[in-house]
Amino acid sequence: MSQPKIRPSKPLSSESISQWDIETDIAIVGFGGAGACAAIEASDAGASVSIFELASASGGSTALSSAEIYMGGNGGTPVQQACGYDDSTENMENYLKACFGNQGDENKIKAYCENSIGHYAWLTSMGVPFKMSELKERAIMALTDDCLLYTGNEKAHPFPDYAKPIPRGHNLYIEGDNGGPLLMKILTEQVEKRDINVHYESRALTLIRNSAGAVEGLVVRINQEEKTVRAKRGVILCAGGFCMNEDMVRHYAPSFDCGLTPIGNPGDTGSGILMAQGVGAGTVNMHECFVSLPYYPPSSLTYGILVNDKGQRFINEDSYHGRVGYNTLMQHKLSKRIYMITDVDGYGDYEKMSYLGAQVAATGESIAELESELELPEGSLQFTLETYNRHAEKGDDPLFHKAAPWLREIKPPFVALDCTLGRGPFYPFFTLGGLDTLATGEVLTPEREIIPGLFAAGRTTAGIPRTAAGYASGMSVGDATFFGRLAGKQAATN
Amino acid sequence: MSQPKIRPSKPLSSESISQWDIETDIAIVGFGGAGACAAIEASDAGASVSIFELASASGGSTALSSAEIYMGGNGGTPVQQACGYDDSTENMENYLKACFGNQGDENKIKAYCENSIGHYAWLTSMGVPFKMSELKERAIMALTDDCLLYTGNEKAHPFPDYAKPIPRGHNLYIEGDNGGPLLMKILTEQVEKRDINVHYESRALTLIRNSAGAVEGLVVRINQEEKTVRAKRGVILCAGGFCMNEDMVRHYAPSFDCGLTPIGNPGDTGSGILMAQGVGAGTVNMHECFVSLPYYPPSSLTYGILVNDKGQRFINEDSYHGRVGYNTLMQHKLSKRIYMITDVDGYGDYEKMSYLGAQVAATGESIAELESELELPEGSLQFTLETYNRHAEKGDDPLFHKAAPWLREIKPPFVALDCTLGRGPFYPFFTLGGLDTLATGEVLTPEREIIPGLFAAGRTTAGIPRTAAGYASGMSVGDATFFGRLAGKQAATN
Repeated sequence: MSQPKIRPSKPLSSESISQWDIETDIAIVGFGGAGACAAIEASDAGASVSIFELASASGGSTALSSAEIYMGGNGGTPVQQACGYDDSTENMENYLKACFGNQGDENKIKAYCENSIGHYAWLTSMGVPFKMSELKERAIMALTDDCLLYTGNEKAHPFPDYAKPIPRGHNLYIEGDNGGPLLMKILTEQVEKRDINVHYESRALTLIRNSAGAVEGLVVRINQEEKTVRAKRGVILCAGGFCMNEDMVRHYAPSFDCGLTPIGNPGDTGSGILMAQGVGAGTVNMHECFVSLPYYPPSSLTYGILVNDKGQRFINEDSYHGRVGYNTLMQHKLSKRIYMITDVDGYGDYEKMSYLGAQVAATGESIAELESELELPEGSLQFTLETYNRHAEKGDDPLFHKAAPWLREIKPPFVALDCTLGRGPFYPFFTLGGLDTLATGEVLTPEREIIPGLFAAGRTTAGIPRTAAGYASGMSVGDATFFGRLAGKQAATN
Repeated sequence: MSQPKIRPSKPLSSESISQWDIETDIAIVGFGGAGACAAIEASDAGASVSIFELASASGGSTALSSAEIYMGGNGGTPVQQACGYDDSTENMENYLKACFGNQGDENKIKAYCENSIGHYAWLTSMGVPFKMSELKERAIMALTDDCLLYTGNEKAHPFPDYAKPIPRGHNLYIEGDNGGPLLMKILTEQVEKRDINVHYESRALTLIRNSAGAVEGLVVRINQEEKTVRAKRGVILCAGGFCMNEDMVRHYAPSFDCGLTPIGNPGDTGSGILMAQGVGAGTVNMHECFVSLPYYPPSSLTYGILVNDKGQRFINEDSYHGRVGYNTLMQHKLSKRIYMITDVDGYGDYEKMSYLGAQVAATGESIAELESELELPEGSLQFTLETYNRHAEKGDDPLFHKAAPWLREIKPPFVALDCTLGRGPFYPFFTLGGLDTLATGEVLTPEREIIPGLFAAGRTTAGIPRTAAGYASGMSVGDATFFGRLAGKQAATN
């Protein structure tokens, strides 16, 4: 197989094409969650569909994820209702707006919340199984086959000030961290059932447009030959994000070009974004990424506190790991070290269960001893921990408002984990910026005019999730599958 | 005059132009610092030049600025040398790299530092006057006619770890805050001396390009008529930033869409960026802005400390006001209030001298009283201030490393100024993102290929300054005039 082509070439002019090798109504680039859903909906709307996937199998980053699909509103999904939660659309919208503030796309948030129950119904109609049960533990992902769990900051300050906490992460009905593979297996089978042409090991090289600026097709390389594809109703780019493209990360998201670990599939090279930019597409939110400090499991570390090299706390530690990761990364701008301070009870099963990889930096029978071993300014950690403990006993955290269930005195002997970036801990990241699109998938110019014939969905676009500080697990797969469907439907109406 | 057209229309095809109303070698959009310097250099290189300025006079944002041009390296400018400073190019480069980290453009930094003395010489050859003297006070701008001053973070932690502190701000030889107007008066006279056609009240509407993608001219509106301009050697966009375009700020720099005060000229609507995007230009650093908390003068407030609503300090207060502004703004993400804590001596001439506009939130004879009046968590401010004072007495700041000259005990009675955004204080901002260009001004596509015939400089581009956290006064005027010159020279070689 040839080397990935990071920088697609300029668009070809359709007037220069003498022969179309492949003709289809809709051409979809990428067979992950977004591409699969786009293909199914477009086909069900009567369009002929061809998918071009550079790997030798479907999956994309969706198959690598836990796929805890973020859904709710409308009175609650059947699972939410079965578990006793009444979720209103307004409440879900308020929550998402609080998560992303000015960065959020109001139209996408509105479409997502209003149609979330419909998306649940569609997924189950495809055969995606959900158990009518809840996982009550604080977890990064469900390792049981239970469905509903809190996957974001719903219960963490300040979000309850904006929206009533409701769990919206929907884990698939399968044991272990296998939701993503199962979701893609089901969606792939649905694609295969339909009259959809899937071309694997096919790399999209460049778009083809006419002199009026409308996209009419693309060039793909299959078996080392370049083929022209005519897409009569449109091209849908579902080619993933750009976390695997170091140049693009440095160029657009420099705050995240600092030794984080990209998580995604090898095709997350930004090729969809670049191809669209070649025909005049605009981008948005390119500077933002998901980033995490995955310090739970064990959830018992949530009883601990995170401090910077001034011995100061900086976040309520019951926040979602992405929000903690974001704020920890920002702390590095003015702090050389970050520690998680816990006790033996909090440390618990850390060595058995953790994904974090942080090493024990110090232990101590007294806070003063720990402080000195960590070379923190004298008195700093003592003040921070004494203040924390004094209030925690009373179920209170006047500084950062960690919720009462996670407040308890941290007792000697103490343990400090070194959470400093570059000194062991796992800081995964992927990109949250991309093409600016309408909720229905049309790709926009920088002036927000529609580029005829061009659609996109998934992490090739800037979708629902806009910053790790407001992220919840399941927002990206939720966004990719939901807006993939809309793009497929919309392209089919062309 | 017609309403500003925020969103320029798509480019025209040169093949569709039946008549060119104006013909020139080089067309320059915008007559601020960048446009003036581009015009002078292009003309001096033998090209015919036309400037199109939407206002009825030259000036742009340069004329509104203090114009403390940031220069150094190469053993020092004549002023640096006269004041006893020996500045190496390497030292200046190290400083700028420390300022902007991954966000910086290495090629631009290199060109800027290596040729900074040449730029000084060119400016003086134009008649720009500098006095061989230094202003030693900590100031936002020189109100005397002295030249050299520290205008950034050179002496503030952590920058001395990366580069020897040297002042590089060059204030013009004029009393008061009049450097910008004088600079533009001189540059305008230089333009007028040459055979350069200046069209005022002329709005650039859109670019004209040929079928091969090269820019061949533009459309301008003069006296309510649209005129086609043929620019045989190129168009140079020097049309300012986009701080006056609320839609663009919200879209690209949402962190700064929060009630800050835009500073710039009414033409800073992003029109240059949008016109270039219309022909396929890429952008970079669009999410970043300059922002400031201008708490000095009086410089005596530097002896104070800034705290968040947890009573924590978060920055060394001897940092440049832009770095403080940036970090204060970021604090607002997790803190509802920000206070400057000072004493009567530190408060000093605040009421007479300040630009800040922050109101006194509380006064107190004891820290406990102040803390209680400010409703800060009990003990928080007491610990912070006691810790600060204990070390300040010894000339030390183990937490934030404020430099010794700014360390002294803060004594009762205490004063707290409310620096919370939206509660009085002035938080000015302007944009630091724009077109991606080569150091020589060529505008690049997202794939970093040159768009033939199109150049840009000044805040229409992403230049030397990339974040308020590393900004120094004089970096934007320095960048605009220097890279304006390079763009003018380069276009003339076409």
